[in-house]
Amino acid sequence: MNKKKIINDPVYGFISIPTELVFDLIEHPYFQRLRYIKQLGMTHLVYPGALHTRFHHALGAMYLMGMAIETLRNKGHDISSKEEEAVIIAILLHDIGHGPFSHALEESIVENISHEDISAMLMNKLNTQFDGRLSMAIEIFNGTYPRQFLHQLVSSQLDMDRMDYLNRDSFFTGVSEGVISSDRIIKMLNVKDDHIAVEEKGIYSVEKFLIARRLMYWQVYLHKTVIAAEQLLANILKRSRELVLMGESVFTTPALSHFLAKPISRDAFMNEDHHLDNFASLDDTDIMAAVKVWAMHHDFVLAKLCNDLVHRNLYKVDITNEAPDKQFITELSNRAVKKYGITPQEASYFVFEDTIRNNAYKPGDGNIRILMKNGMIKDITAASDNSNLEALAKTVKKYILCYKKDLT
Amino acid sequence: MNKKKIINDPVYGFISIPTELVFDLIEHPYFQRLRYIKQLGMTHLVYPGALHTRFHHALGAMYLMGMAIETLRNKGHDISSKEEEAVIIAILLHDIGHGPFSHALEESIVENISHEDISAMLMNKLNTQFDGRLSMAIEIFNGTYPRQFLHQLVSSQLDMDRMDYLNRDSFFTGVSEGVISSDRIIKMLNVKDDHIAVEEKGIYSVEKFLIARRLMYWQVYLHKTVIAAEQLLANILKRSRELVLMGESVFTTPALSHFLAKPISRDAFMNEDHHLDNFASLDDTDIMAAVKVWAMHHDFVLAKLCNDLVHRNLYKVDITNEAPDKQFITELSNRAVKKYGITPQEASYFVFEDTIRNNAYKPGDGNIRILMKNGMIKDITAASDNSNLEALAKTVKKYILCYKKDLT
Amino acid sequence: MNKKKIINDPVYGFISIPTELVFDLIEHPYFQRLRYIKQLGMTHLVYPGALHTRFHHALGAMYLMGMAIETLRNKGHDISSKEEEAVIIAILLHDIGHGPFSHALEESIVENISHEDISAMLMNKLNTQFDGRLSMAIEIFNGTYPRQFLHQLVSSQLDMDRMDYLNRDSFFTGVSEGVISSDRIIKMLNVKDDHIAVEEKGIYSVEKFLIARRLMYWQVYLHKTVIAAEQLLANILKRSRELVLMGESVFTTPALSHFLAKPISRDAFMNEDHHLDNFASLDDTDIMAAVKVWAMHHDFVLAKLCNDLVHRNLYKVDITNEAPDKQFITELSNRAVKKYGITPQEASYFVFEDTIRNNAYKPGDGNIRILMKNGMIKDITAASDNSNLEALAKTVKKYILCYKKDLT
Amino acid sequence: MNKKKIINDPVYGFISIPTELVFDLIEHPYFQRLRYIKQLGMTHLVYPGALHTRFHHALGAMYLMGMAIETLRNKGHDISSKEEEAVIIAILLHDIGHGPFSHALEESIVENISHEDISAMLMNKLNTQFDGRLSMAIEIFNGTYPRQFLHQLVSSQLDMDRMDYLNRDSFFTGVSEGVISSDRIIKMLNVKDDHIAVEEKGIYSVEKFLIARRLMYWQVYLHKTVIAAEQLLANILKRSRELVLMGESVFTTPALSHFLAKPISRDAFMNEDHHLDNFASLDDTDIMAAVKVWAMHHDFVLAKLCNDLVHRNLYKVDITNEAPDKQFITELSNRAVKKYGITPQEASYFVFEDTIRNNAYKPGDGNIRILMKNGMIKDITAASDNSNLEALAKTVKKYILCYKKDLT
Repeated sequence: MNKKKIINDPVYGFISIPTELVFDLIEHPYFQRLRYIKQLGMTHLVYPGALHTRFHHALGAMYLMGMAIETLRNKGHDISSKEEEAVIIAILLHDIGHGPFSHALEESIVENISHEDISAMLMNKLNTQFDGRLSMAIEIFNGTYPRQFLHQLVSSQLDMDRMDYLNRDSFFTGVSEGVISSDRIIKMLNVKDDHIAVEEKGIYSVEKFLIARRLMYWQVYLHKTVIAAEQLLANILKRSRELVLMGESVFTTPALSHFLAKPISRDAFMNEDHHLDNFASLDDTDIMAAVKVWAMHHDFVLAKLCNDLVHRNLYKVDITNEAPDKQFITELSNRAVKKYGITPQEASYFVFEDTIRNNAYKPGDGNIRILMKNGMIKDITAASDNSNLEALAKTVKKYILCYKKDLT
Repeated sequence: MNKKKIINDPVYGFISIPTELVFDLIEHPYFQRLRYIKQLGMTHLVYPGALHTRFHHALGAMYLMGMAIETLRNKGHDISSKEEEAVIIAILLHDIGHGPFSHALEESIVENISHEDISAMLMNKLNTQFDGRLSMAIEIFNGTYPRQFLHQLVSSQLDMDRMDYLNRDSFFTGVSEGVISSDRIIKMLNVKDDHIAVEEKGIYSVEKFLIARRLMYWQVYLHKTVIAAEQLLANILKRSRELVLMGESVFTTPALSHFLAKPISRDAFMNEDHHLDNFASLDDTDIMAAVKVWAMHHDFVLAKLCNDLVHRNLYKVDITNEAPDKQFITELSNRAVKKYGITPQEASYFVFEDTIRNNAYKPGDGNIRILMKNGMIKDITAASDNSNLEALAKTVKKYILCYKKDLT
Repeated sequence: MNKKKIINDPVYGFISIPTELVFDLIEHPYFQRLRYIKQLGMTHLVYPGALHTRFHHALGAMYLMGMAIETLRNKGHDISSKEEEAVIIAILLHDIGHGPFSHALEESIVENISHEDISAMLMNKLNTQFDGRLSMAIEIFNGTYPRQFLHQLVSSQLDMDRMDYLNRDSFFTGVSEGVISSDRIIKMLNVKDDHIAVEEKGIYSVEKFLIARRLMYWQVYLHKTVIAAEQLLANILKRSRELVLMGESVFTTPALSHFLAKPISRDAFMNEDHHLDNFASLDDTDIMAAVKVWAMHHDFVLAKLCNDLVHRNLYKVDITNEAPDKQFITELSNRAVKKYGITPQEASYFVFEDTIRNNAYKPGDGNIRILMKNGMIKDITAASDNSNLEALAKTVKKYILCYKKDLT
Repeated sequence: MNKKKIINDPVYGFISIPTELVFDLIEHPYFQRLRYIKQLGMTHLVYPGALHTRFHHALGAMYLMGMAIETLRNKGHDISSKEEEAVIIAILLHDIGHGPFSHALEESIVENISHEDISAMLMNKLNTQFDGRLSMAIEIFNGTYPRQFLHQLVSSQLDMDRMDYLNRDSFFTGVSEGVISSDRIIKMLNVKDDHIAVEEKGIYSVEKFLIARRLMYWQVYLHKTVIAAEQLLANILKRSRELVLMGESVFTTPALSHFLAKPISRDAFMNEDHHLDNFASLDDTDIMAAVKVWAMHHDFVLAKLCNDLVHRNLYKVDITNEAPDKQFITELSNRAVKKYGITPQEASYFVFEDTIRNNAYKPGDGNIRILMKNGMIKDITAASDNSNLEALAKTVKKYILCYKKDLT
């Protein structure tokens, strides 16, 4: 059977599946599940094209990895077929542990477990199922494989993950400010002292990449309406669990039921297989199906929150450089108590705070190295004297305050 | 409150909402529902980017309509603001009656009711809610408004619906063969004797449009794997309803439950409001949530079909110019009976036939008129002597035979 | 010295120069000359972006050739590095013999010598200069190299030349009807019985390619205003030569002077080196510099023709399926005689005929083979039963009549 | 006669000519001349696609102006048809005074006269020819028309000129770092207190615009090889004029001859019509035709410089933050004297210095105003607290040193 397939991708044209093992991993239910988990969660409420999935992103990152390996080989770096397959598998599976709407729900579904933890667990299960053929991929993913540059292609500030998500998110949102020249950056990659470096003449493309990332943060990832929608969803899950714990019955799919029923400890999740099995069958559908039904629940709070999400009555968001005025929050809360006839605790579902922070580049942490023409390595912020990149290394923190529009 | 909003669209850049009424219609739950109904149903199993929704398509068609009206006005045709808003509403709502996966399920959810019927019902309900302000839009939609060319912009072989779906479907699938020059075609539109016509120098763009449509049919809309997936889904719904009628319990969301419980006649649907209300809360989520749960149903047939869809074990499809060999079908069916221990009637869920047909252009039916330089009107097939468009008017019919791969 | 360079190309992103020999050929004055020869001659008078050069086209075709070779190798066909370099050189140099505005001037500059003849001569000269390292490339170019499929990549109805020019011409003119999926077609290429074939699933992309080519012919290559401009230029050269032969002095650059001074026979051109040397220094600049100066010549005919070209007063063109009416031509000619005070022979510069013909596909002549899933080979016109490709094989012939607008 | 034409533009799709007067201006020989003046001079030697002309740029800027006017009107600003036509004419003609290769030759062709001076002269001549119908356009261009915002659309740090040239230069060079969202920026334009302002939510698009401009400077406009080529051309003109003044005969077209023959003072140029007439017939062709012929001149210096340009043997360029070492320059110069047997003064043609400087944004000078949601106006650098725009306001200065490669 021919397992070398070509997949149409509107971003890159065509993506070829390089080996049979990769093909089999893509066919695996763990990976197919990613077809039903949107990359950008509720962002489509603001950018209606943003329905692309983690499945598609993983394939895209795999495609870029193929290009990167080819480039490095053409520059004389020996990379074996086994290493090539391993690094491709590592990037393909890097997000396999994401659950539905993980920006909003990561802590709501399973406490104290990150998607990285779950990715590691799923990769290990797959490795068992595939007779240890993923061992090298896992080492690369974890950074324990001797050749560090392979890990950096999977995870660093200029990895194939970031390049694909910037390309893809900007393609599907239509936010052209996020367009990067991944082609050009990849063609400029090189390896120096076992670290990935960008050749000097690619410096402007890297600068563009960092700025594109910053602009995508402010225009998409941290767009205040997106944040409002995701907070709304987080509140919905929180309220539904609260009701369940109070003995109320709420509609759920079986997979979601498992996680609403009672808290699962980190230890339990790590050690009892059925938790992971349930997790592996959970996707966006479970959440949205429940939210739609809950919109008719007799609990005022749950029903209102769900109605607001389903019909896109999103909350007002104030975004500020300073923490919002406590007095104002109290007022809003009091109005909610009076208007809806709810308790102050319940009012916190309709008036709530959050903070967001972003820095486009973090020197020191998987930093971006420039290979100068004279063979020296410099950090990107030092490499370019015309650059304003130092500013990008500043962390920007903002406060947000969300509340139902009818409270003002 | 400012209701003039701009929406990012990766296909056209930006879409402006032209009036407050249009804004309010877009905010209406009937229209927001389209956010959760994919334009191309199960096509994303073949083209992973094809997750765009009927919501987005309707906005896109609205955008093109705005351009068309502007072009016609610039050529001296009087179109009042009221007519402009009405024709924009007509195109915005043209697909409002679509249910989830309507290619696969139109007949499974509600028998003898087409999505056009439901669109008409929903538009009338909206018209009541909006105090009759949709009356002209409805007349244009129905073709009863005196100025025919407005209806033709909404529904004909060169309408804004088709132009947007070709643009949009080719954008999100990545099938570049479907790209059309909607900009150019729209700039060449004119009105002659109250009919839409394309100026002679636009003839090649129209030819390209027809060919793009044909290529999209064969590469996307009638792609054999897409058809296999949609038939699989249709069989799933059929089986689930069969089980319900046999008294079996099957998981459903409340909205889906309404339609699975018992057959609803056309008359009942037309006359009893609660059917339409239930329909208006049904979307892709209800279907996919059920399918996921049914994959664990104790009925072998339902569980197997659902598992196959969820994990993308799609069926083999033979596509032929002649009807498939009866003998071969019987053999396959017998093997299914033996292999799965099911009845011959049940075997028909795993071995089944269909036909597909397509003609890219139908002379006579909302046909495409070319306005020659001398002021005469010709049908597109007659207007161009270098053309091979007559071939496009031929209907092509194909037979398809689907069966589980392990039966061969 | 590092001769592996990357060139920015707006069509494909980046073009890498694969070997040092290829680099040196690109640097050679014969090849650099192509920087100053526009691919589409006077077409920029209709499509102002169409200023791209034969230099850029040759690089683009080289890029596509690299992709094709990579694809064929991935499918298990052995192609040595030497063959790869040779076929890349063959495509790089395939148009090296083009002179300026060769559609208009091929016969005016050197009689009875085609650009193919001159390409062969220049390749042989280069082969001598490069110590025979182009021998295999020349064999491939001529079709005498044993492996035919390599020649077909350079010259057939689906060669890299055509793919690049369709991509490039449609990019720079902005005529989106000409966009093809070269990526997809190339990924579908295979070799069967030493002939290039396209795998069956690529059939729609090939169909799109043929139709794109047809549409480009009618919209660009045979656009009537383009033809009028090129005929005008041809007439200008003819008149200038006439004047020179009559002993008049006309301004020329030295390179053009060589070819205007007296007719050069095919034999002389083939055998006396200085003709080719002069030819190799001739480009668009020589022609346009002369035309600008001639616009002030005292010969009424030459000055008027040149003024008309420089200031873009292009002639009226009637394009018809039947030969134009002789009577009408005589009338126009008489009016020119009277109006301008010129002889009837001179009037023929302002009133003249031409024919154009095109067929998008020629069965039998380097025809396009489809490799069916069953391993059989079919001609494209036979491979697709839904196809209307037979119509594309028809030759379409048109008559054109050009005349100065003020004669009607 | 129908003068409303549509022009294909690969950048924007289609450009419509809005009025008859605009059509007639485009047809005028002064404007048609721009067809033969490349926007980016010798840049095509580095980016082979960069052959687009000032003609095309002017049309593109006109197109954007049409969009801007439409946007402002939709926001309730009254702009009369006459003002619309005038501001469109102002942008159409804003570069009409550019000569061939003006970056390289502005000072070589006519001393002490800028292209702005010549634009003004040509506009006045056109105004006379068109019976004063350009008066308002000229006032807008000069900033003397009462409504300042119209002038700012033509000339400011966010004018239609810059937007088009960034779009167009990045399109034709293929440098994707220069892509801007002109659509989005224009949709965000507004007028406040008779000044153009960008609405607050457009702030990221403006930031992207400024950065794109900066990256285009370093990657294209100030690319060291481009600078080397333009300096080479400047030296060629300087040498040819030197020879002419020494009584040597050099080949020229008549138009170029006028300017080489003897220096023309600013006063003479302003007051004697024949200078401007000659200028208006000068384009890239005149320069390149001469350079090609001069490559065979008996003067060693001129011939060598021209040969180097024609065959693209460009000079080595050192680009530094500090002035280059005087000692090193002297050494290079001495080597040139010895190697070529020329005088030290002549050696300066082969070893020469220049400086380049750039700042992406100049606060205070036609600065970019942001219209905050509260109705206040802020400078772009103050409007965004996450911004690193202040860095863009720094002037960056670099020193370049060019010399023939064989001198090291």
